[in-house]
Amino acid sequence: MRPSNHFVGPMLTDLYQLTMAYGYWKKGKDKDQAVFDLFFRKNPFGGEFTIFAGLEEVVRSLNAFRFTDADIAYLQDGTIRKKEELQLDFEAGLRHGFIRKRSRGFEELRYDPWGAESWEPKDYPDHDLRLPGPMRHCDPAFFDWLKSVDCSGLKIYAVPEGTMVFPRIPLIRVEGPLAVAQMQETVFLNLTGFPSLMATNAARFRLAAGEGKGLIEFGLRRAQGPDGGVSASRYSYIGGFNATSNTKAGQLFGLPARGTMAHSYVSSFSGLHEIADPRLAGADGKEEDFLDLVLQYRRQLGYLHTNEGELAAFVSYAQAFPEGFLALVDTYNTLKSGVPNFICVALALFEIGHKPVGIRLDSGDLSYFSKETRKLLRKTAERFSIESFGGLSIVASNDIDEAILFSLGQQGHEIDVFGIGTHLVTCRAQPALGCVYKLVSINGQPRMKLSDEADKMTVPGRKDVYRLVGGNRHPLVDLMIEAGKPAPKAGERILCRHPVSEPKRVYVVPKDVIALHKCVWDGRQIFSFPPLDTIRRYVQEQIAVMRPDHMRAVNPTPYKVSVSEDLYRSMHELWMHEAPITEIT
Amino acid sequence: MRPSNHFVGPMLTDLYQLTMAYGYWKKGKDKDQAVFDLFFRKNPFGGEFTIFAGLEEVVRSLNAFRFTDADIAYLQDGTIRKKEELQLDFEAGLRHGFIRKRSRGFEELRYDPWGAESWEPKDYPDHDLRLPGPMRHCDPAFFDWLKSVDCSGLKIYAVPEGTMVFPRIPLIRVEGPLAVAQMQETVFLNLTGFPSLMATNAARFRLAAGEGKGLIEFGLRRAQGPDGGVSASRYSYIGGFNATSNTKAGQLFGLPARGTMAHSYVSSFSGLHEIADPRLAGADGKEEDFLDLVLQYRRQLGYLHTNEGELAAFVSYAQAFPEGFLALVDTYNTLKSGVPNFICVALALFEIGHKPVGIRLDSGDLSYFSKETRKLLRKTAERFSIESFGGLSIVASNDIDEAILFSLGQQGHEIDVFGIGTHLVTCRAQPALGCVYKLVSINGQPRMKLSDEADKMTVPGRKDVYRLVGGNRHPLVDLMIEAGKPAPKAGERILCRHPVSEPKRVYVVPKDVIALHKCVWDGRQIFSFPPLDTIRRYVQEQIAVMRPDHMRAVNPTPYKVSVSEDLYRSMHELWMHEAPITEIT
Repeated sequence: MRPSNHFVGPMLTDLYQLTMAYGYWKKGKDKDQAVFDLFFRKNPFGGEFTIFAGLEEVVRSLNAFRFTDADIAYLQDGTIRKKEELQLDFEAGLRHGFIRKRSRGFEELRYDPWGAESWEPKDYPDHDLRLPGPMRHCDPAFFDWLKSVDCSGLKIYAVPEGTMVFPRIPLIRVEGPLAVAQMQETVFLNLTGFPSLMATNAARFRLAAGEGKGLIEFGLRRAQGPDGGVSASRYSYIGGFNATSNTKAGQLFGLPARGTMAHSYVSSFSGLHEIADPRLAGADGKEEDFLDLVLQYRRQLGYLHTNEGELAAFVSYAQAFPEGFLALVDTYNTLKSGVPNFICVALALFEIGHKPVGIRLDSGDLSYFSKETRKLLRKTAERFSIESFGGLSIVASNDIDEAILFSLGQQGHEIDVFGIGTHLVTCRAQPALGCVYKLVSINGQPRMKLSDEADKMTVPGRKDVYRLVGGNRHPLVDLMIEAGKPAPKAGERILCRHPVSEPKRVYVVPKDVIALHKCVWDGRQIFSFPPLDTIRRYVQEQIAVMRPDHMRAVNPTPYKVSVSEDLYRSMHELWMHEAPITEIT
Repeated sequence: MRPSNHFVGPMLTDLYQLTMAYGYWKKGKDKDQAVFDLFFRKNPFGGEFTIFAGLEEVVRSLNAFRFTDADIAYLQDGTIRKKEELQLDFEAGLRHGFIRKRSRGFEELRYDPWGAESWEPKDYPDHDLRLPGPMRHCDPAFFDWLKSVDCSGLKIYAVPEGTMVFPRIPLIRVEGPLAVAQMQETVFLNLTGFPSLMATNAARFRLAAGEGKGLIEFGLRRAQGPDGGVSASRYSYIGGFNATSNTKAGQLFGLPARGTMAHSYVSSFSGLHEIADPRLAGADGKEEDFLDLVLQYRRQLGYLHTNEGELAAFVSYAQAFPEGFLALVDTYNTLKSGVPNFICVALALFEIGHKPVGIRLDSGDLSYFSKETRKLLRKTAERFSIESFGGLSIVASNDIDEAILFSLGQQGHEIDVFGIGTHLVTCRAQPALGCVYKLVSINGQPRMKLSDEADKMTVPGRKDVYRLVGGNRHPLVDLMIEAGKPAPKAGERILCRHPVSEPKRVYVVPKDVIALHKCVWDGRQIFSFPPLDTIRRYVQEQIAVMRPDHMRAVNPTPYKVSVSEDLYRSMHELWMHEAPITEIT
């Protein structure tokens, strides 16, 4: 399967991956056997857990990892902009006022908003423009090699999509020829960072909203580009959202898509004269004068000063969607116009056998308005003896974040469904996860990246990861051991050491042991991925068995990530060996 | 020209645009003549300016606005997941441990990491699964209409790409049939919001770094998805960056691409024994024992305790890129290993006629390390009488944001080029701009969106926008007037009113008047767009003529955006007419 996004391929990378590949190739090191780990150093959003996602697209990208002739030509020879194209651009520049006349002609392009007279351009670009290739100085034989490269030599282990993960755990372990494994870095980071962040963010919104509430992702318009939006829909769904407004994501991934009306719909109607045809068929198929019914309720309830354009919009929408009537009520005045207009239309729908859905609030004090709206709905339910009227849905949106969800919960509110946009899809509270991809072994020798900053240190060597689970089903600690060593066993006492801090050690007797790494690529894709619904349930199941203090929003307890005694010793030995002793002079 | 991103098309939208289109179509309102404005309410990043970008992709999206048969089929009939596909997914779920056996069979999928025994699945999904179409209840004739829809009926005015803009100004004005104009909302917002935010963010980094410094965008790995990264490269370039590490963006847009090495390159070398071939040809073509030269300098300078793997990596890289040697110096210890190793290799390059580039710092105290490095470079320059050695480039990266650039400037530093990643490409300080798209006129009648929040009010009606410019070339104020009314004239006294606040009025006698709106679409694309270089210069020219107090980072002065006296009166009249008087009871 190919990547969902057509930018994904071997060129979606930092140029230094290619210059390093050249360095390796030139030195004959390109086939050295390397192991890279992809991991992160800190959970996002001030929390103590992360939901890993993006693996399916990583595997798809491996299928697409072939340089085309056009890619090679660009790297080696650069690009040519044709004279004709430059001329078109030039004309556009003149038209926009980006270009002004200079005494020497047009060759120097400068902005001049004050050059308002019309031009008679006669000094057009008259030759093609060549932009040099970024790797033009490399040995031409390198490009033959590059053309031949694919991922058939790689073996890749990963934690399953949707797994709850923690800092320092290798989420993906890549084994294979150094140059090819190196060239996966940027695209792997790009394809896992934002998806994992999104899934985690969505899971946090789910925790904040509570299980019984509906959560709809509304963020396409605020997302960072088209597939920022499409990714947000997909990964917020696996994180625990119920639906999205994004039609494309619905189509691509089979997500439930939802939507009703915007303010522009409401304000496009100026009055009841626009309802040329007042009819609507009831549930029994009989045509009724629907508008007249609505106006009878309006008079009966005394809602005579509401905005009539809004009322016309609601009537019209109910005629189009008699079984899907959800009205946006804050265009003019929520409690004095929107909700009363909704009530009149909804009662008329009920009368002819349809069931309206509810209202949407998009501004103001959501707690107050939801409670006042609920009171009005209940009062109406009582007056007209329509029991279910009091329980019609109240949907709320308007810049909602995790803190607002908690605050609404504290104040009490009557909202059934939250529409979440900007804060969810841009991960506003922390818009990047900060995964890294580090060389941990070469030709069987463990490697580590030291640094002047201790927390940038990596755990060297090829490692397997196990989750040790307690008798109450709570995961207790994750343990990294040297790959190939015997797995820890349930019922045995296991010493788990903090990777860096020497005195921090715990003994664990797990009831169960889960091997977190699965092989997902062995020269080729070796399985298909489960549907999003399955992954979505998997996420919620894991959240349910975590100790609650790891999951709470404020000051959560860190989950323990440890190394075996053997790994601790070997990594600290290497550390001491590699780090120079600074001399103070 | 087609959209750069293949997700862009009429399905990249919120579902409610389509349900509203159905509502309009059903009511016969789809051809009502509408005018929509796209604008924002607040400049980003606590600043007082915004660089508008994304217009080219907006126009490309108009070219691609046709629903396909597959789109229609999805909306109407939903999607089918084939039995065979479900079975593959099911197998993957078993393999991953997403699915466990239940007494009733496999039909209920639940996560069970503890179900470790191997399975003999015999209760496979045995029929296709249908997901219902989100518009399945709509009149089938609607889909014939939807199939026929394109943008040939629209006329679109916009502010040119790269223009400095301010709150409330219509950046794009869309005129045409209500339903089609409505359906542009989500994709227009998606395609302009992040690009404008990126270009603005980049321009702010440029202001913070100062004109003489190099700025390279390094953010692909941290970006929000593949085209989050590609967009970041493109729009940070027009905002004032010099280059990007993103090879794909270099290829697509002709941006300068840059890159050298990562820590993994350095740590993939364990010692000098890896330099099997010590030779390098000098500038004169003569082969030299390059490694020997390096080691001579090493002994001469007494740098004998540096990391030898790192030294081997540098020698190897210099052999691959003798004219592009830029060394990452912080893998082991910046001042005790990285910089000394660099100096030995760089001196050897100089000796045989090549010119090294410099060093890159990626951790630690960038100000301190850059100053200490510069001292070492200058000392070396003096000792070996190589004047240009002292001025070799120092490149710095590591989570740099706008505040750090200012802080580095205050401390003094010796950095020549900044590599900026996360904070730039995710716009971490504010990851969404918050543009809106509002109906302002229908069938010639001005419309406005009121709300319980005053600042969500829109300026109604079809409007032109002019920038009034003072004698010193500083823009003074932007003025919206009713479209079609005579443009304000240079040299005449013009009354400009605050759109909302009644007493705020100024008289302006502009030296020049710039009409900000250009027609970019008149049923078809009516020009091509200027190259990024031209737009990039245009951005810097505009920044140069702004009054500095509008541009400063801390507490900048707001730029005035005003309406004409006529527009003020008509909008306030409409406001009074539409807003109901609340009764306190």
